[in-house]
Amino acid sequence: MAASTHNLLSHSPSLPKTLNHPLKQNPFSHLPILPLKPSKNLFKRHSLSLRAVLSQNTAKTQNTTFEHCFTKSPDGFLYCEDVKVEDIMGKVEKRPFYLYSKPQISRNVEAYKEALEGLKNPIIGYAIKANNNLKILQHLRRLGCGAVLVSGNELKLALHAGFDPTKCIFNGNGKILEDLVLAAQAGVFVNVDSEFDLENIVTAARVAGRKVNVLLRINPDVDPQVHPYVATGNKNSKFGIRNEKLQWFLDSVKAHPNELKLVGAHCHLGSTITKVDIFRDAAVLMVNYIDEIRAQGFEVDYLNIGGGLGIDYYHSGAVLPKPRDLIDTVRELVLSRNLNLIIEPGRSLIANTCCLVNRVTGVKTNGTKNFIVIDGSMAELIRPSLYDAYQHIELVSPTPPEAEVSTFDVVGPVCESADFLGKERQLPTPAKGTGLVVHDAGAYCMSMASTYNLKMRPPEYWVEEDGSVTKIRHGETFEDHVRFFEGLCLQALLQLFQLGFFDSFDVVCTWRLIFLSLFIYNILALLLPVFDFVPANHPVFLALSNEFIVKISREAKTGRPLRPE
Amino acid sequence: MAASTHNLLSHSPSLPKTLNHPLKQNPFSHLPILPLKPSKNLFKRHSLSLRAVLSQNTAKTQNTTFEHCFTKSPDGFLYCEDVKVEDIMGKVEKRPFYLYSKPQISRNVEAYKEALEGLKNPIIGYAIKANNNLKILQHLRRLGCGAVLVSGNELKLALHAGFDPTKCIFNGNGKILEDLVLAAQAGVFVNVDSEFDLENIVTAARVAGRKVNVLLRINPDVDPQVHPYVATGNKNSKFGIRNEKLQWFLDSVKAHPNELKLVGAHCHLGSTITKVDIFRDAAVLMVNYIDEIRAQGFEVDYLNIGGGLGIDYYHSGAVLPKPRDLIDTVRELVLSRNLNLIIEPGRSLIANTCCLVNRVTGVKTNGTKNFIVIDGSMAELIRPSLYDAYQHIELVSPTPPEAEVSTFDVVGPVCESADFLGKERQLPTPAKGTGLVVHDAGAYCMSMASTYNLKMRPPEYWVEEDGSVTKIRHGETFEDHVRFFEGLCLQALLQLFQLGFFDSFDVVCTWRLIFLSLFIYNILALLLPVFDFVPANHPVFLALSNEFIVKISREAKTGRPLRPE
Repeated sequence: MAASTHNLLSHSPSLPKTLNHPLKQNPFSHLPILPLKPSKNLFKRHSLSLRAVLSQNTAKTQNTTFEHCFTKSPDGFLYCEDVKVEDIMGKVEKRPFYLYSKPQISRNVEAYKEALEGLKNPIIGYAIKANNNLKILQHLRRLGCGAVLVSGNELKLALHAGFDPTKCIFNGNGKILEDLVLAAQAGVFVNVDSEFDLENIVTAARVAGRKVNVLLRINPDVDPQVHPYVATGNKNSKFGIRNEKLQWFLDSVKAHPNELKLVGAHCHLGSTITKVDIFRDAAVLMVNYIDEIRAQGFEVDYLNIGGGLGIDYYHSGAVLPKPRDLIDTVRELVLSRNLNLIIEPGRSLIANTCCLVNRVTGVKTNGTKNFIVIDGSMAELIRPSLYDAYQHIELVSPTPPEAEVSTFDVVGPVCESADFLGKERQLPTPAKGTGLVVHDAGAYCMSMASTYNLKMRPPEYWVEEDGSVTKIRHGETFEDHVRFFEGLCLQALLQLFQLGFFDSFDVVCTWRLIFLSLFIYNILALLLPVFDFVPANHPVFLALSNEFIVKISREAKTGRPLRPE
Repeated sequence: MAASTHNLLSHSPSLPKTLNHPLKQNPFSHLPILPLKPSKNLFKRHSLSLRAVLSQNTAKTQNTTFEHCFTKSPDGFLYCEDVKVEDIMGKVEKRPFYLYSKPQISRNVEAYKEALEGLKNPIIGYAIKANNNLKILQHLRRLGCGAVLVSGNELKLALHAGFDPTKCIFNGNGKILEDLVLAAQAGVFVNVDSEFDLENIVTAARVAGRKVNVLLRINPDVDPQVHPYVATGNKNSKFGIRNEKLQWFLDSVKAHPNELKLVGAHCHLGSTITKVDIFRDAAVLMVNYIDEIRAQGFEVDYLNIGGGLGIDYYHSGAVLPKPRDLIDTVRELVLSRNLNLIIEPGRSLIANTCCLVNRVTGVKTNGTKNFIVIDGSMAELIRPSLYDAYQHIELVSPTPPEAEVSTFDVVGPVCESADFLGKERQLPTPAKGTGLVVHDAGAYCMSMASTYNLKMRPPEYWVEEDGSVTKIRHGETFEDHVRFFEGLCLQALLQLFQLGFFDSFDVVCTWRLIFLSLFIYNILALLLPVFDFVPANHPVFLALSNEFIVKISREAKTGRPLRPE
């Protein structure tokens, strides 16, 4: 196993790295942000010298939507929009946190909306799996986005956030019946992924008593040239139907006129795609399929080309395709068939709007390697460990001139060697407590966070249009963990009731008393934290703990007497 | 990136695989369990034919502690102890769940206790990071275990579970000051991992006003021959101090007699170790260090050789070292120096006591590959994706004779190709709804679970000594997710109070009214779910939602009037 995965730890040397592009070579390479509506303080902060640089780069700055909203200013401090990140660190909880730019989210949506202009009823289906923060979803909904869902809970969340169900698409290779019933009731689009999936959708339609609008997810077998974990549209993928089975699916839809209405076709190639040509290759194939489907009398109006546009994780100044580039490659095709285009951006809408903000715990060396140890970890952000992903890392404040620049692994406190946020990064040696950000952390970071090592999931904040900072998600707490084990005794007691254990008259008084005190305990446990008094650890409550009740429950079930432990 | 990590997806062909050891070749290869106290029904169930097989294998069955408590009986059903897993599936929540054998946990601890007999005051420090279920911790504490902690929250949980602090060790390369203060107050052992860590421990001792018992974590530079992600004791690791710096650390401890008491030395080689020789290699080095340390006048009594014993994930019948083998390799060394031995088992105590129990959603093929799609996923169990780990997979019930045996990838519903639980497994084609277990899921599975795709974390159950099934952890719910976004408005209001926004007399009444209604709303939101009435979606409550309050808050901070949206 060791041999086969050894490569996991080493970045391919051919890929651009921070350390090949140190900031010093081109101090303005990832400066400046140019928001569509430039904020009033921006130029004051960057001063005249910066403006001069801007005017030399007009060609580049025209299409600025995907520039970074987190910028290092000439004063050496990192800003989110026009707020100093270090100032925010001083104001919020003292632990790693995610920091978003709300205006950047708006700008990213705006770029897609502009790119889609001229097309008939396009849907920007935001892929909730990338980031499921409710406040962000509500913001995206207000900006006109639809939602792409991959589970029943994501569907519930989308409805909770107020998304228009007719702009929602339920995807996935393993949709369970219960979730499909929810989808049918809500009236969202559902993608058909396989034979058994079609069967389940038909059943769901019957249960819900509603016809379901379906799209066929066709696997076009196009290689997206990305990490195998995020490639989903090639032959070996678990997703989609086989092209040669298309007729079977068309016949099945025809056979269920009361349950299914075929409205379109769907493909999704993968993620982190940096060459838009492959979208065109896929779209050509898909339009051919649509022609074939229409020829059989189906009125299909929707072409869903999925998502997957990559972003500039390396901050190397590479010119990556923008939403407009993506849409332009398929525009004529879509117009030629009078189709409604659905796109499913996730990463490209949200990734670059966010940083994970950490504090340096200390710096160490083992003789051969140097480490910057931070308080953030693979628990909060697993992409580097899981996908060998590169995310750009920098300090939020200037270091003194004497701070040596070295090559560091940036690691967290989690007890395993998989816990790194970056490898071989050239950074000035930071002092304890220095802020350090992991960039482009808006997508597939918080949504994949765990509580490994009981590092509870971090809070989230965003910088608003006027520069104020608002909390948009509570951090998870130790008490949230303990709550998973509370009230287990009450449940056991309720089970006793159902079993009729309280029917026997001679014991009923004793048990009722115990039950009542436990009920009161549970109510207190719910109520008292409000007044900052947590009773769960109190000896009186411990005496009434689950162990005792489990025994009682067992006695009830087995009819055998209690044994001393 | 694609090229460098391509190997990630392919198992090394030299490793044993289910598909090289199909069940048919040796139907009894992973039968039977032989609990130390055989349960009364076991032999009844397995019938006489099984007993005959057992008697032929007496040599092997003498040391049975690490045999599997989940066994396939000749009737084709999977049992946990003597309870049919399929029966449990019918009784509990209809979603993936973790199922433990409580007796197996006891047996695993017993094996370590027996192995340690004859040693002076040994400590079995259970590594909480492997599995942080509170009920399991309480059980382990009652069996006499100590605890190994890697975060402040794990320390809190250990104290909450009632562990004796003098049997607890706080490890980690990035311990933050706040957590170290907790550790000093509680009086647990603390490992010194680096120069900055020592500095922080000294500060923590001063803050807490208590001397801290410390062990030096020395990196012995021994290759554990495991996956690089779980190797922690070699030269490139982020863990431990450099041997050549030992004198610096000894001098530093001497320089802080009021803050630090050096009590021992610690090393930890890695995890999933299958050759106990390397423990001996490390122990020889460590005892030399201890001699060196004692020669300088330190009274050190503890040798902590860490954990890391592997388990038989492949169920291939391979003879793996048992706790006794591990302890025997170091026994003489430890006795010769009159040391208290600390061991830190995690995986070897808990991994084989548990399965993740899933349901088959359906079976599909893409022409070249077959897939069994289940409701469990990388969200509940990430080890196969993250470490390319093999965990044995089988069905819980017999399939009809006509069910074709094929090679399948076992995948979940999560929308990415990283979502697999097993690759290329030879299994009979299961019907929809069939139970399918992923074995040896007790360690580093639930503790690493995420809510990716909003698949909420699963509930946990265990089978008790008498065969009853008890819930030992609530499943996470959709409401748990939504709770992270509740009350954000109340916080904003409280902030307003602090800012003195309510000091102005002319607005005070209006604001107090709003504040009061929000306060009541929050109390109701806490209380009403008890009576199964969730008010958060109610239009009246939505009207009082956060959006409005955020605006008010902003107005308060900026002094500018509210703008219509």
